[in-house]
Amino acid sequence: MKIDSPEAYVESLRALERRIYLLGERVENPVDHPMIRPSMNAMAETYNRGDEPEAEELLFASSHLTGGRISRFTHIHQNPDDLVKKVLMQRLLGRRTATCFQRCVGMDGFNALYSVTYECDQEHGTEYHERLKEYLRFVQEENLVVDGAMTDVKGDRGLRPAEQHDPDLFVHVVERRADGIVVRGAKAHQTGALNSHHILVMPTTAMRKEEADYAVSFAVPADAEGITFVLGRQPSDTRKLEGSPLDVGNPKYGSQEALIIFDDVFVPWERVFMCGEYDQSGKVVERFAAYHRQSYGGCKVGVGDVLVGAAQLAAVYQGVEGASHVRDKITEMIHLNETLFSCGIACSARGVPTPSGCYLVDVLLANVCKQNVTRFPFEIARLLQDIAGGLVVTMPSQKDFENPEIAPYLEKYLRGSADIPTMDRIKVLKFIENMTVGCGAAAYLTESIHGAGSPQAQRIMIRRLADLEDKVRLVKRLVDLD
Amino acid sequence: MKIDSPEAYVESLRALERRIYLLGERVENPVDHPMIRPSMNAMAETYNRGDEPEAEELLFASSHLTGGRISRFTHIHQNPDDLVKKVLMQRLLGRRTATCFQRCVGMDGFNALYSVTYECDQEHGTEYHERLKEYLRFVQEENLVVDGAMTDVKGDRGLRPAEQHDPDLFVHVVERRADGIVVRGAKAHQTGALNSHHILVMPTTAMRKEEADYAVSFAVPADAEGITFVLGRQPSDTRKLEGSPLDVGNPKYGSQEALIIFDDVFVPWERVFMCGEYDQSGKVVERFAAYHRQSYGGCKVGVGDVLVGAAQLAAVYQGVEGASHVRDKITEMIHLNETLFSCGIACSARGVPTPSGCYLVDVLLANVCKQNVTRFPFEIARLLQDIAGGLVVTMPSQKDFENPEIAPYLEKYLRGSADIPTMDRIKVLKFIENMTVGCGAAAYLTESIHGAGSPQAQRIMIRRLADLEDKVRLVKRLVDLD
Amino acid sequence: MKIDSPEAYVESLRALERRIYLLGERVENPVDHPMIRPSMNAMAETYNRGDEPEAEELLFASSHLTGGRISRFTHIHQNPDDLVKKVLMQRLLGRRTATCFQRCVGMDGFNALYSVTYECDQEHGTEYHERLKEYLRFVQEENLVVDGAMTDVKGDRGLRPAEQHDPDLFVHVVERRADGIVVRGAKAHQTGALNSHHILVMPTTAMRKEEADYAVSFAVPADAEGITFVLGRQPSDTRKLEGSPLDVGNPKYGSQEALIIFDDVFVPWERVFMCGEYDQSGKVVERFAAYHRQSYGGCKVGVGDVLVGAAQLAAVYQGVEGASHVRDKITEMIHLNETLFSCGIACSARGVPTPSGCYLVDVLLANVCKQNVTRFPFEIARLLQDIAGGLVVTMPSQKDFENPEIAPYLEKYLRGSADIPTMDRIKVLKFIENMTVGCGAAAYLTESIHGAGSPQAQRIMIRRLADLEDKVRLVKRLVDLD
Amino acid sequence: MKIDSPEAYVESLRALERRIYLLGERVENPVDHPMIRPSMNAMAETYNRGDEPEAEELLFASSHLTGGRISRFTHIHQNPDDLVKKVLMQRLLGRRTATCFQRCVGMDGFNALYSVTYECDQEHGTEYHERLKEYLRFVQEENLVVDGAMTDVKGDRGLRPAEQHDPDLFVHVVERRADGIVVRGAKAHQTGALNSHHILVMPTTAMRKEEADYAVSFAVPADAEGITFVLGRQPSDTRKLEGSPLDVGNPKYGSQEALIIFDDVFVPWERVFMCGEYDQSGKVVERFAAYHRQSYGGCKVGVGDVLVGAAQLAAVYQGVEGASHVRDKITEMIHLNETLFSCGIACSARGVPTPSGCYLVDVLLANVCKQNVTRFPFEIARLLQDIAGGLVVTMPSQKDFENPEIAPYLEKYLRGSADIPTMDRIKVLKFIENMTVGCGAAAYLTESIHGAGSPQAQRIMIRRLADLEDKVRLVKRLVDLD
Repeated sequence: MKIDSPEAYVESLRALERRIYLLGERVENPVDHPMIRPSMNAMAETYNRGDEPEAEELLFASSHLTGGRISRFTHIHQNPDDLVKKVLMQRLLGRRTATCFQRCVGMDGFNALYSVTYECDQEHGTEYHERLKEYLRFVQEENLVVDGAMTDVKGDRGLRPAEQHDPDLFVHVVERRADGIVVRGAKAHQTGALNSHHILVMPTTAMRKEEADYAVSFAVPADAEGITFVLGRQPSDTRKLEGSPLDVGNPKYGSQEALIIFDDVFVPWERVFMCGEYDQSGKVVERFAAYHRQSYGGCKVGVGDVLVGAAQLAAVYQGVEGASHVRDKITEMIHLNETLFSCGIACSARGVPTPSGCYLVDVLLANVCKQNVTRFPFEIARLLQDIAGGLVVTMPSQKDFENPEIAPYLEKYLRGSADIPTMDRIKVLKFIENMTVGCGAAAYLTESIHGAGSPQAQRIMIRRLADLEDKVRLVKRLVDLD
Repeated sequence: MKIDSPEAYVESLRALERRIYLLGERVENPVDHPMIRPSMNAMAETYNRGDEPEAEELLFASSHLTGGRISRFTHIHQNPDDLVKKVLMQRLLGRRTATCFQRCVGMDGFNALYSVTYECDQEHGTEYHERLKEYLRFVQEENLVVDGAMTDVKGDRGLRPAEQHDPDLFVHVVERRADGIVVRGAKAHQTGALNSHHILVMPTTAMRKEEADYAVSFAVPADAEGITFVLGRQPSDTRKLEGSPLDVGNPKYGSQEALIIFDDVFVPWERVFMCGEYDQSGKVVERFAAYHRQSYGGCKVGVGDVLVGAAQLAAVYQGVEGASHVRDKITEMIHLNETLFSCGIACSARGVPTPSGCYLVDVLLANVCKQNVTRFPFEIARLLQDIAGGLVVTMPSQKDFENPEIAPYLEKYLRGSADIPTMDRIKVLKFIENMTVGCGAAAYLTESIHGAGSPQAQRIMIRRLADLEDKVRLVKRLVDLD
Repeated sequence: MKIDSPEAYVESLRALERRIYLLGERVENPVDHPMIRPSMNAMAETYNRGDEPEAEELLFASSHLTGGRISRFTHIHQNPDDLVKKVLMQRLLGRRTATCFQRCVGMDGFNALYSVTYECDQEHGTEYHERLKEYLRFVQEENLVVDGAMTDVKGDRGLRPAEQHDPDLFVHVVERRADGIVVRGAKAHQTGALNSHHILVMPTTAMRKEEADYAVSFAVPADAEGITFVLGRQPSDTRKLEGSPLDVGNPKYGSQEALIIFDDVFVPWERVFMCGEYDQSGKVVERFAAYHRQSYGGCKVGVGDVLVGAAQLAAVYQGVEGASHVRDKITEMIHLNETLFSCGIACSARGVPTPSGCYLVDVLLANVCKQNVTRFPFEIARLLQDIAGGLVVTMPSQKDFENPEIAPYLEKYLRGSADIPTMDRIKVLKFIENMTVGCGAAAYLTESIHGAGSPQAQRIMIRRLADLEDKVRLVKRLVDLD
Repeated sequence: MKIDSPEAYVESLRALERRIYLLGERVENPVDHPMIRPSMNAMAETYNRGDEPEAEELLFASSHLTGGRISRFTHIHQNPDDLVKKVLMQRLLGRRTATCFQRCVGMDGFNALYSVTYECDQEHGTEYHERLKEYLRFVQEENLVVDGAMTDVKGDRGLRPAEQHDPDLFVHVVERRADGIVVRGAKAHQTGALNSHHILVMPTTAMRKEEADYAVSFAVPADAEGITFVLGRQPSDTRKLEGSPLDVGNPKYGSQEALIIFDDVFVPWERVFMCGEYDQSGKVVERFAAYHRQSYGGCKVGVGDVLVGAAQLAAVYQGVEGASHVRDKITEMIHLNETLFSCGIACSARGVPTPSGCYLVDVLLANVCKQNVTRFPFEIARLLQDIAGGLVVTMPSQKDFENPEIAPYLEKYLRGSADIPTMDRIKVLKFIENMTVGCGAAAYLTESIHGAGSPQAQRIMIRRLADLEDKVRLVKRLVDLD
């Protein structure tokens, strides 16, 4: 692994020459930009062995291609235990950062493409699988961050890709050359896009024959010509520019999402993994989604652990940790969080091999996992705010605490338990603000709804995979119907 | 009503000379401060007759003291119909502003004190009721905004007022003079504090004999000597400073909460409405809370109306308004919102007279109302985000849309339905961001939990008022138990 | 009121000569049948002044036709206060009986037809309204129980009345004569059918032109020629035949539902209130449903009161009434129950006059009311079982308690608190069994889902009445869209 | 395995001479009693290889004691895969029977005692572990059903065992002899008690020093002298006596629970596995509960499968299977059911070895599993009733369908889809009645709340095992607190 530390990772990003916009301005040095850096710090934790006893076996794996020690984020799952470890790794990093550490999309993309390219080659006589393995070997050795880019901007949701008024609303091939292809379009909500070395593009839905140009998958460096990044806003994002770490709440870590525009970007054939095989596109979507829905049963659970801790700490600092209703609410937070974890573990432990050798999660249970993630974090956040109290949204700013004219008032009047410094209490409440109505809520709440597919996408899969006919047979037998 | 228009109201605030801090700095001109002004605009709507046919009879009433036309916000409820109209007025203003318009606390404070001062005078031979009526007459004639200030900062929640390590953690009398009293302490989470002419202070809990100095109620001008305001932060609050109305989401209206510090403030006797009658303090809290819990069955329902509209508009703009799951989710939003309204109406229609003549809501049902408000808005917000899509937290900034290098990309790629301008869609989504994870979430979510008392406070009242013995009798009769 | 006491009511039923089937056999004397009598007892309570102070003004009203004192169950609502009193009456009777007292369907049918016949006459020049008033006068004077019969058996729910393979699956006119009409079909789930003197038939859905024969409304005596009743089964129904009042749980009261078959029944014109005016049929359904959905905000709340009492009594008898989780669960039961009550009150207090003078509930809020009733009773029942303990479904029979060989064992081992006789505890638990998985569950749970229309029926109405366009306008104004 | 078929199992029960009471009478021949037989049929399925491909590896295992093929119900879990297979076996049998098949309590009891006796011997120098292994070998060879009996009758829940007014309210040792012990007391809610060859008694809570006589565990034949069984009632139980399989709903299978009274029963020392080691009692309870809470993530999921099938079949038979709200409700039923399954799998896959070699489930996750089971089945049942329609509780009896006077009416009017025989529809609806408000509801609803411990018992464990301090550390690190 060439990039072998958080520091090396950050340095490696400096080499990229990208076209990035943020708050209406071109960003020349994203690495040191205070609004971007926290998300980079979160990503950097994936390079950090850390001090948890279990971290080594969770964060790293042995490459099935080379036998070498690699980041699990670049690993192809070889058995159910790998799938379980993936979830445990995600919980670990969620606990460290309390946010999205962004590197899962690439991992999930590689694993999805691994089995589909294999099957595509079998069916179509293509040679995508070897190309992908070659590329993967390179990624493992360099230890790159690869952004898995699936979600198109989609235009009118009531229309299919080929029916849109503008053909570019889904990424598609605009030219096929001897040496490669040229693509156009945009991918939305790209988590960690600015913290990635490469971008691995996949189709966003099952394409039909007339949409063959949209059935395209490929990888490009993040600074390939023709690529533009526009960073999205998050709640309270500019607090990171104020020099007010207190007001940021989670001062070191954050998440990030960008719109990536592909304006006639050239891709050499060796980095093309699907091009026109529209019958394979649905499988990529379904498998990537399954892996990524599994992911939420790990990462958000890690964040949930921190929120449970925050609830307990706020209760202690305010003198109510012994109240029966507070104890019961914290129990409920734990219960909901561990239910999510159970779903993450179950779809992993029930993983099955694909013909390629790569293991796939139980797709039904992975969808069940994500469906619960679209619900429980809101309830966890509500309970957390309940315990924290209204001060979460009425606290003065860090600058007020620094102004000698009023700081003594604040110190005096915002103290909770007498033996806890006021600032300690405020730190916890600012963190809770961040997680429930601030920057962190983007990752913990909204992303929990829409990441890896919106709720209805999971319901469609759950129904499709439930084998209703089988269940009908059970009743018929019991009540003696033919 | 001397102040008889939104404009006159704003001008009236200029006359106040207050000590205000915001983001660590003293604010000399709060009226024109871009972070404060939106909350002032929301308050100003209470002075705006508007164009709704029902507005006149909802926003104004006939004074039972003078017979004159007054703002309903300064009115004492004379019958259940007044209580119902209060809720309808609040829904109306919630619909106009989609935020907290802040004037209810004073109204609820006056109504609570009206009956309690009457009863106190009967029991203690005091003369608070006449003082209060005199003051109320003045407020009605001037048409002032009066901040009803109840919530103390409270210190260690596990200790009573007299047990705190610092006696000032609850507002109390520090000196009794011939001409009045001197008070010290602070009131937290004061909604609309900077938009108020006067402050009406009430005790925060039922006091005991040894806490007689904490049993104090009085009114002072907002610029009385010794008062300091420290404004709280809200999510994304500084967007209002950016000159980016688009990014603010709800550009015209907002809410506001402040910490009010009373540093040995003098109050003349004619503005003191309780001073030591600790046995009356619990009644003030209970009645104020009941009125204010009723309020939430109006104002938040009005906001909910706007959120339902936003869900529908987002669905239309993105081409999914016909999808059955989208239709069902919007139906659920309506159902939850109207359930809250039903609770607001029910406790009003079941109102009962107090000995003073002032009508009190059904206290049990008012607590039931607020308890539901601590739950349903989170589910409504979750459903709204579900329908809106992930773009809610990944949209570029207004400045990006104004940068000619990337604006064409954004215009092209962020369009939903082909016949809707991209900016129209973005406006709706920015509004949804504001309401669910931005500034508006402070008022719609956190305030729904903690305003008018935290959830557990309502549960204690619900249990206390439910007459379990009566219900036990019903079962005993049915199953023939003595 | 000729029938002026519970006793007189029971005697009046003896005069009816009806064709009734139960458990496969013809029932000659339904009045004294132990499986039918409890439901008759519940109905008889509507004739019982009782000892509650408020009973007189709730159970009786002044006829707007004659000025005489009449049962409120035969009253036409003259103002919102009448609508509120209806709900209070229903809660009162639910508290007395802990079951469905069955007389509301007729009341709701009369009120629905009252306004629709008036409007029909205006539009079509018919004379139904006077006929209905004449009939109502007779019913008020005799003080009859009239079964309001709406729900057809419906056949294939995917097909309309005229599309069914059998034209009789919806009640329809098969012959028009000079002196009247002949009808055929069946009405399902007829609550209290055997306890009614008359049957008031209404169409079950909005009919179309080709379905004019299905647009029929009329009244007939319960023993008219051609009518057959088949009583439905309920859980644990035959315990009433065992001579085991203990095992019945709610020994005195019960509910009842029957299938009523109309096999070419003749109806004289003076008792026909709609015949072919298909454009009026939808209004009857909508208004009847609205009144009846309101009803559930009263009757089920009364039952809920008893269940709260049962939870508290079981807790006391088992020594856990002080446990914080038990207290909290009972609080939640109260909260849910009072939320239902709030919905019942709100749609009543917001009632509006129809052109006929009869007051109609707020239809949107009435649908919201019933929608909540399809949910909360299941949660209340779950909490009740939680508190009661597993013994609810593992208790021995009354006969075991009477067998001297084992009664001492049972007395010894099934005692809860030492100072409570074992049998007292068992009585409460048998009652809870009845209400949650026994006979009473049919009325409290299943009927709460399907009575007055299934959940989806309410959702359709809620969406239709919510005025989405108005709500969209609110957002557009706030974010400055056209 | 001597008993090697369902038939052999049933015959083996005939040899037992037990003292059984049901409905107040002594039952001489329980095997052929129509109210008991269905529960025996369900138990017999544990002896039935069946035709499912996976049945062999799920229902049977290889004994770690002898290497022989044994029933998994008599197996000690040797690895996480054994734990997973247990859950899969339970789901399989739940699918076959739609009820409780009753044999899990013994399995869970053996596994709990296996590790605790090992540890007890280590700590106290006792020899319980070898005794237990000897006994287990015998049970495996004979292939016996062993009732695991834990729940005492408990008297006043607010008092500890030693504080009750009657010392027998918890099973205890009343005499220690050279050859064994004499015990007295009663175990309540004993699932499948009459279908068991032996009874394995365990303490019901963690005992203290002064309660050493209550810290007792032992096994006795079901027909040991001094044992009396009193069978509990279930909803609609006597329908099984009517000769009306249609009305029974689930005609072949059922569950059963009994009170077992130990009136000075002698137990030889070789069948005593704890006697006075009070410090070990809590571990038995905690581990048995953990295993049994895991069990509910299998068996109730199997029942849930049948309920999903019933919902779908009812929808098809009534012509509504295409309605979007029906489809969505069925999807929700599946989602909730698979969430329960995920919890069952997760606590199994995360199983850990005990010093004895026996694998224990993840105790935290097993408690989370059961906690969800106390909630979701009620919602599943509610949705099922919603789809099925009100006919579920208003259907005529089987005897009505057999009476030629009314059968043609019923055939005609209760038909749903024209191409489905009326009786087919009724069979499905009677099944749904059974499962939601009939006999089956005792097993699916009430047992889901209270089996393996009531909800609060799980919450106490969840909180205890959640390691709050660890979670607090996570926050402190993030916000830089000491």
